[in-house]
Amino acid sequence: MAKTKKTSRPKARLPKGLRDIPAAEIRAQDAMLRTIREVYERYGFEPLDTPAFEYTEALGKFLPDQERPNAGVFSFLDDDEEWMSLRYDLTAPLARYVAENFESLPKPYRRYQTGSVWRNEKPGPGRYREFTQFDADTVGASSVAADAEMCMLAADALEALGIARGDYVIKVNNRKVLDGVLESIDVTDEGQKLTVLRAIDKFDRLGVEGVRLLLGDGRKDESGDFTKGAGLTEEQIDQILDFIESAPVATLTDKEIQDTIAGTQSSLGDDESELHALRILRYGERKAIPVLIDAGETLLALVKLFRAGGYGSDRIVIDPSVVRGLEYYTGPVFEAELTFEAKDEKGRPIRFGSVGGGGRYDGLVARFKGQEIPATGFSIGVSRLYAALNLLGKLKDAETRGPVVVSVFDKDCMADYQRMVQTLRNADIRAELFLGNPKNMGAQFKYADQRNSPCVVIQGPDEKAKGEVQIKDLVEGAKAAASIASNEEWRSERPAQFAVSEDKLVEAVREIFARHES
Amino acid sequence: MAKTKKTSRPKARLPKGLRDIPAAEIRAQDAMLRTIREVYERYGFEPLDTPAFEYTEALGKFLPDQERPNAGVFSFLDDDEEWMSLRYDLTAPLARYVAENFESLPKPYRRYQTGSVWRNEKPGPGRYREFTQFDADTVGASSVAADAEMCMLAADALEALGIARGDYVIKVNNRKVLDGVLESIDVTDEGQKLTVLRAIDKFDRLGVEGVRLLLGDGRKDESGDFTKGAGLTEEQIDQILDFIESAPVATLTDKEIQDTIAGTQSSLGDDESELHALRILRYGERKAIPVLIDAGETLLALVKLFRAGGYGSDRIVIDPSVVRGLEYYTGPVFEAELTFEAKDEKGRPIRFGSVGGGGRYDGLVARFKGQEIPATGFSIGVSRLYAALNLLGKLKDAETRGPVVVSVFDKDCMADYQRMVQTLRNADIRAELFLGNPKNMGAQFKYADQRNSPCVVIQGPDEKAKGEVQIKDLVEGAKAAASIASNEEWRSERPAQFAVSEDKLVEAVREIFARHES
Repeated sequence: MAKTKKTSRPKARLPKGLRDIPAAEIRAQDAMLRTIREVYERYGFEPLDTPAFEYTEALGKFLPDQERPNAGVFSFLDDDEEWMSLRYDLTAPLARYVAENFESLPKPYRRYQTGSVWRNEKPGPGRYREFTQFDADTVGASSVAADAEMCMLAADALEALGIARGDYVIKVNNRKVLDGVLESIDVTDEGQKLTVLRAIDKFDRLGVEGVRLLLGDGRKDESGDFTKGAGLTEEQIDQILDFIESAPVATLTDKEIQDTIAGTQSSLGDDESELHALRILRYGERKAIPVLIDAGETLLALVKLFRAGGYGSDRIVIDPSVVRGLEYYTGPVFEAELTFEAKDEKGRPIRFGSVGGGGRYDGLVARFKGQEIPATGFSIGVSRLYAALNLLGKLKDAETRGPVVVSVFDKDCMADYQRMVQTLRNADIRAELFLGNPKNMGAQFKYADQRNSPCVVIQGPDEKAKGEVQIKDLVEGAKAAASIASNEEWRSERPAQFAVSEDKLVEAVREIFARHES
Repeated sequence: MAKTKKTSRPKARLPKGLRDIPAAEIRAQDAMLRTIREVYERYGFEPLDTPAFEYTEALGKFLPDQERPNAGVFSFLDDDEEWMSLRYDLTAPLARYVAENFESLPKPYRRYQTGSVWRNEKPGPGRYREFTQFDADTVGASSVAADAEMCMLAADALEALGIARGDYVIKVNNRKVLDGVLESIDVTDEGQKLTVLRAIDKFDRLGVEGVRLLLGDGRKDESGDFTKGAGLTEEQIDQILDFIESAPVATLTDKEIQDTIAGTQSSLGDDESELHALRILRYGERKAIPVLIDAGETLLALVKLFRAGGYGSDRIVIDPSVVRGLEYYTGPVFEAELTFEAKDEKGRPIRFGSVGGGGRYDGLVARFKGQEIPATGFSIGVSRLYAALNLLGKLKDAETRGPVVVSVFDKDCMADYQRMVQTLRNADIRAELFLGNPKNMGAQFKYADQRNSPCVVIQGPDEKAKGEVQIKDLVEGAKAAASIASNEEWRSERPAQFAVSEDKLVEAVREIFARHES
């Protein structure tokens, strides 16, 4: 390594906003992905994998931050001078895939995909530049039943992951409600519309007063940064907030609402979600705004499908404050939220909020094909959901037993120890030969403890002569050490170390496992 | 979508050298990864995930192609002007991880990792710029037992994947043999050494004459491209080839070899691998080249450990032609090869060759830490192994049954169909509501066929009135269609379509599954 000394040494460090994932999280996340996959398969979805990067042109105007067209993604130039970008979601690659393979796909095409996505954004606490998403999308279905299915799928996936009914909610709205409201207050500029959309999307975080500022002149945040607002009048803002907070209740009389409910075939009684949908529908009719009528009808149809599928208002609700920040949504939008209370390590309450979302995007494939192809999808933020489940202790047990450690008493007998460790492994027992410096047994026991080993196998010259091995039970040994008082008594019944014939090694280790489990 | 029409449309296309992975391959590869993971866990390895990219500086001089220092990887500039590169293997990120977290890791540290790696290389048939590797490494163990374990691990993984003993071989050599030979023929220039290494690494593909050219003046390939050689003399070349082809047999008499075998404690009889190791050892002793003596002793110790672990010469052999192209190996090197004969679709024989490899790299962590940390590892080329297994029909069955399709007879009854499909899903039956245009039943049956559905559920007004559904068995239906002659007879026993009470839907579908399986 003479060369190494000559050059200055690089610092071993992660690029900012990235992280290494430790063993316990990998195991738990792997179990989560398998659970989600099972649910999606049950719904008839097929897996697809696309590459980590695409031509930047193919991601095109669907970049997450349109105000900085080339920002938000990691891009690099290929040697033929074409720009490529790491995918920032799994939807844009799907649009490219569908456009490229349209003829051969079943229609509608239900696909799921999981994998890393990358965002070239300022990292922050819990905010990484690489994270895992799990998406389901149905392409080629304009039916509202396709949207309904996405919400039911999300609910089923969350419950399969161990989140109890009542601890989450799927919130549904229709982007067309906003379109209709903007039309009714004469906001037609696309840029202004987008600013309004982004403002409303922050309702959860900023509350009504924060959104009011962003709809008006603008808002200064805690750090002093100023965000320019949409520049609407007070009257326009009031109209929008009226819709966000509770749908346009004020515009309908109680009698009108009652008549409306009585007049629908599928009145669901006190279902607030149905009422929301009806209010929007009636408001649209009264103001003669077709897009609002459409929006209300769609929401009403969704509620009917949810309830028919057995998904009550304890699982899926219409929530007028949900808009989703991405511009490409064209109809129903969804958001999955965890609702239970939790505390962090310091006992402070935590709100997890959104762990996934999606919606209908009928224009995304049209970019490539010209022809509009309806599509709807739902994306689970796996990394975020993992963090929530972890903090709550709701992760399914992904613990793996530590390996049995075969210790090295005499370096010249490595072949013997190797044979023992292979015998254990061949019997499907997780086992390791100690590969560190075998100078003393203490270091080997310390290593075994660090590895969470159930037991250590030892063969010195005496044991070898007798064809035996010593097995030291580390779990019982630790218990014994913890209860010195009853030590002697315990020792007579369950020795923490004992000798067995070498050909009984596998049976003896299995007995120890059984003892630990009982 | 007025906007779309105004702008010119991008072409939907994959960046060159990348590919989408279809459902069947994802399922099969997923099963493969799970199998490999089980074997690695059994050996005591712990999972780790690192990010997709690292600071370019951290990958540093371990880039795959040292002749073009900035080539071979995909790199991009962060907004703080630091270069980052997509990982081209899983070893360099491990070195960074270990250097960064050395104090908290168990020593030795056994870790496994799987994921995509990216190479900025000219793509070719079957040669992609993104592919999946599965690595196991042991860091902090200088013991030859750590190297031996890598080879046994690889053998076990291949067998667990369904490759029969005899259909693969793990080839082992020691990089120090080449070091010693180069020393004995006075080649000391680092650049020249690397050229020799690269030349020998092509032995499998080019044969002895091709390598001879690359060791001499150079070689022109089929396309006319000329590769400059190492510029060695004929005598030097002969000496090297002598080692590659069969170890220095000519330099020892039969008597010397026999004496040598008789003189070792663990003579394994006719084991060619042991003979190779012994020849190198004796040659080193005769020429007084310490590095060759060390190399021979290490190989001898490896053979003993393999055989003690129960891995005979049908699984792991010493092969003097294996050198591995990467510069960073410092000791034993390994290569996993598939050896059985196979034919492609056109009946032409195929050689799969290497599906994985690795070796000892004691210097990789030292780049960061100064202090040398011994390490050894093995990497399986998952994408390549998948391609081989697929062509051989040796993939474990990863077929998933197509979904039951609930058809849409009447658009106004969507809520009824939705309820049926959820009933099936809640009973853990893969099911879909038909979400396409329900204009005719023919299109829905065609869709069901395309989805490989076992059966279709239909409810028209007559069935609805009776509280029934029709179930059309597509598998039996297809059989019936294929044997028109016995059609009538068959129909009387196993009707391809029948009516059941709606509340017996789940049972009826399960009966159909059972019938298909019998």
